Amino acid sequence: MSNKKPYILISNDDGYQAKGLAAIISVAKNFGKLIVVSSERGESGMSHAITMKTPLRVRKIKDEENLSFYVINGTPADCVKIGMNQLVERKPDLVLTGVNHGSNASISVVYSGTLGAAREGCLQQIPSIGFSLLNHDKDADFSTVTHFMSKIIEQTLANGLEDQTFLNVNVPDISINEVKGVKICRQTKGVWKEEYIKRTDPNGGDYYWLTGAFDNFEPKVEDTDEWALANNYIAIVPIQIDGTSYAEMDNIKNWNL
Amino acid sequence: MSNKKPYILISNDDGYQAKGLAAIISVAKNFGKLIVVSSERGESGMSHAITMKTPLRVRKIKDEENLSFYVINGTPADCVKIGMNQLVERKPDLVLTGVNHGSNASISVVYSGTLGAAREGCLQQIPSIGFSLLNHDKDADFSTVTHFMSKIIEQTLANGLEDQTFLNVNVPDISINEVKGVKICRQTKGVWKEEYIKRTDPNGGDYYWLTGAFDNFEPKVEDTDEWALANNYIAIVPIQIDGTSYAEMDNIKNWNL
Repeated sequence: MSNKKPYILISNDDGYQAKGLAAIISVAKNFGKLIVVSSERGESGMSHAITMKTPLRVRKIKDEENLSFYVINGTPADCVKIGMNQLVERKPDLVLTGVNHGSNASISVVYSGTLGAAREGCLQQIPSIGFSLLNHDKDADFSTVTHFMSKIIEQTLANGLEDQTFLNVNVPDISINEVKGVKICRQTKGVWKEEYIKRTDPNGGDYYWLTGAFDNFEPKVEDTDEWALANNYIAIVPIQIDGTSYAEMDNIKNWNL
Repeated sequence: MSNKKPYILISNDDGYQAKGLAAIISVAKNFGKLIVVSSERGESGMSHAITMKTPLRVRKIKDEENLSFYVINGTPADCVKIGMNQLVERKPDLVLTGVNHGSNASISVVYSGTLGAAREGCLQQIPSIGFSLLNHDKDADFSTVTHFMSKIIEQTLANGLEDQTFLNVNVPDISINEVKGVKICRQTKGVWKEEYIKRTDPNGGDYYWLTGAFDNFEPKVEDTDEWALANNYIAIVPIQIDGTSYAEMDNIKNWNL
């Protein structure tokens, strides 16, 4: 890192007015100069989607000495992309996303817009962290996550992250003194068992609402993020961009192709 | 596998009328009974996004003995989810997605709706393969990809895939006899360097179109999918669900958290 004050790009997936976004800004402002790029609307479940067929509009809503704040009509990954390409004054030292209202542990990392934005920061070769609180409520209490966030940001700035790797941080919905510590974990194996609720509209047409419950394939395994969270730890999972299964490469090389 | 004829779920991200979808159906029908669930519109760049805030509508457009065909107003991952939860007659033996009009090699696996659908099939614990052709044209020639697809489907049904792993198959835009073979590869390191083109509307408002060029970080490395494709091979990359960086877990355990 240079001697300059860190420059930090922030985004989220719950819309620019989300309390979780305000929480992340409140901590990050102690570390450096901020640029916030957020979506007009909530973009939960948008994963790493990008907007290709409609143009983006950018609206600047704050222009303070240490905080520029932009709102766009795009996805969380779009926020990071257009922020990096059009809005930053220099390459950021850190990308922070969240705080998400709700868990992004286990395979939710695949569906999450908050983690999509963090992954995009990582692809752009900036140390990136996504934060999530295990409470969906729009008025959730973010004091535990902000308390521990400072140390995690400080250590990330001090140590850096491996290229092509970002952090998925999930925080249980408990008070600060109930937290047993911070655990470095692996991503839990599991699946969202989707259930669709079928309804019929006044004109006789059927429609389906997505609902669903998480099925943890390894609920008792102590090195997983879901176990840590269920046992009052903050869970940090380092996630890599490379999706290759090297073991399966070896298997398939024996196929008759 | 049981003695029953394989039951195959098919989806894509270029809309239900795409030529690439017709290409995959034309090959898959030789292997078993098909259920196709596709999107009304093109959904390129939708990644693993799911629809949470609006309900899904399902329209059945074909109901033949060996082919049911449904169209929905959702993303490719939605297609697989609602297909599995509401539309299949039994658990499919295979999920096939594509054929995508355009490459999904390297880190495009992150942005691709076609690969989002394949990943969802894998999460639902079904062997899943996404196919892509390196030609964006809506009238592209799919004869090379269909030629090699048969063998890949046959071998996947015969050998199965490791749990939590799916295949990303990319095919160069060349004739059958120009293909040098099939290569089992790893995901190339690279990034889409986004460039936004800024325009001004008749009312003076600015808007931005996403464009961009792929930057290959390792263009000369022979075990990568981009190298294989550039050298006239079909590239198969096995992709795993687990994103954990175990090496970085060890590093972070030494942080002062």
